[in-house]
Amino acid sequence: MPKYRLDLSYLGSGFHGLARQPGLRTVQGVVEESLSRIIREEVHTVAAGRTDAGVHARQQVLSFSVEGTLEEARVLRSLGKALAPEIAPFSLSEVDEAFDARRSARFRVYRYRILNREVLDPFRHATVWHFGDELDVEAMDSGVAALVGEHDFAAFCRATSAGGTMRRVISAKWSATELDLVEFEISANAFCHQMVRSIVGLSVDIGRGHRRPEELSVVLANRDRSRAGQLAPARGLVLWEVGY
Amino acid sequence: MPKYRLDLSYLGSGFHGLARQPGLRTVQGVVEESLSRIIREEVHTVAAGRTDAGVHARQQVLSFSVEGTLEEARVLRSLGKALAPEIAPFSLSEVDEAFDARRSARFRVYRYRILNREVLDPFRHATVWHFGDELDVEAMDSGVAALVGEHDFAAFCRATSAGGTMRRVISAKWSATELDLVEFEISANAFCHQMVRSIVGLSVDIGRGHRRPEELSVVLANRDRSRAGQLAPARGLVLWEVGY
Repeated sequence: MPKYRLDLSYLGSGFHGLARQPGLRTVQGVVEESLSRIIREEVHTVAAGRTDAGVHARQQVLSFSVEGTLEEARVLRSLGKALAPEIAPFSLSEVDEAFDARRSARFRVYRYRILNREVLDPFRHATVWHFGDELDVEAMDSGVAALVGEHDFAAFCRATSAGGTMRRVISAKWSATELDLVEFEISANAFCHQMVRSIVGLSVDIGRGHRRPEELSVVLANRDRSRAGQLAPARGLVLWEVGY
Repeated sequence: MPKYRLDLSYLGSGFHGLARQPGLRTVQGVVEESLSRIIREEVHTVAAGRTDAGVHARQQVLSFSVEGTLEEARVLRSLGKALAPEIAPFSLSEVDEAFDARRSARFRVYRYRILNREVLDPFRHATVWHFGDELDVEAMDSGVAALVGEHDFAAFCRATSAGGTMRRVISAKWSATELDLVEFEISANAFCHQMVRSIVGLSVDIGRGHRRPEELSVVLANRDRSRAGQLAPARGLVLWEVGY
């Protein structure tokens, strides 16, 4: 059976997350439904990253098998029309049978954006966490340096994942990118559930001076989720890139 | 009676335009309702620019009179909370009695953005016109040069306005700003109804090669609305700045 890889962007605001769930509007559910109708065959997809409700993707990757060969350009165009404007598929190509969007991925990159100013911005509201108090971005960045490397991320995982809580973080950086934007970029082989939002929540506690930068490495070492602090809102998070 | 000036941004997608209309959700209606409740006095505002349904504002200005003096910072904060997240008031100050948000304005600046690439962008969909065909931006820019100066803009006005159709355009420029963004900025003493969207519609016909750049000056001179062509979608338009 021919296998395909579909790359897509989406604004997660109107969805109950990526993963298919009966009776709920999810990204995977909507994509599979449209795809099945277009190619007249029931399609089941595998996704690179299971983004939560309200989380967005600049690049999400799905893989799926079909009975017959697809005219990629035509299917992609029809799918784009069916899914507009919240989901934008931008690439469809045949891949090797061994390819699996989740298992073949070597790394994932997430970005989290904080709008750090007093007044909110109606134009960016859906994709940032609006946070009015001053943030010490250097302190936040020095805190997350402790994440790089192979660690047990139990303190930042919502529940013990099937595959355990060991992950390899390749890079983690906080920076003030624009005038009023503070951005976190983290790259890892894989992420456990709510890991990025949990790290962002603790980072912001550091940035506003409620906790010291060193505490992040202590929380990590103690593997105690109860000390990791609040979860940052979903809307600031974007699955930025998946590498194979 | 003390007079005040309120500056605000808004995402127009969820509103039937700026102007108050019975039974419809409008920016002015929502702002006046919240303001009246906060200061416990019925407030009527005057706006610098009457943006249409779906049109946004980076800077809109309202003026209004009240019986008593306001604590500006407190009122602004309460109003911000009441109007979030689609409307963001960012400045409130007492002004001279002679000030009128509409009549005192010396110029208005509008921007119109076209996302010029094949695939749409879910993150910017609410604030751009997604247009997939190639555009000759130089031809568009050379066309709109004819607009600068004092002219009768009847060809680009939806209906004969109360104040006639003479307007003074200060500057008008098309440029390719980012990788895939084509932007129009136009500044004038005032605009008649749907003037910018009408100019953008004709500009795009020039950009895709359906009409020659010189035709814009001919349409302007002939004052014939029927030859001005299609109206560009509201969502790409932003009231960018009001100058006093």
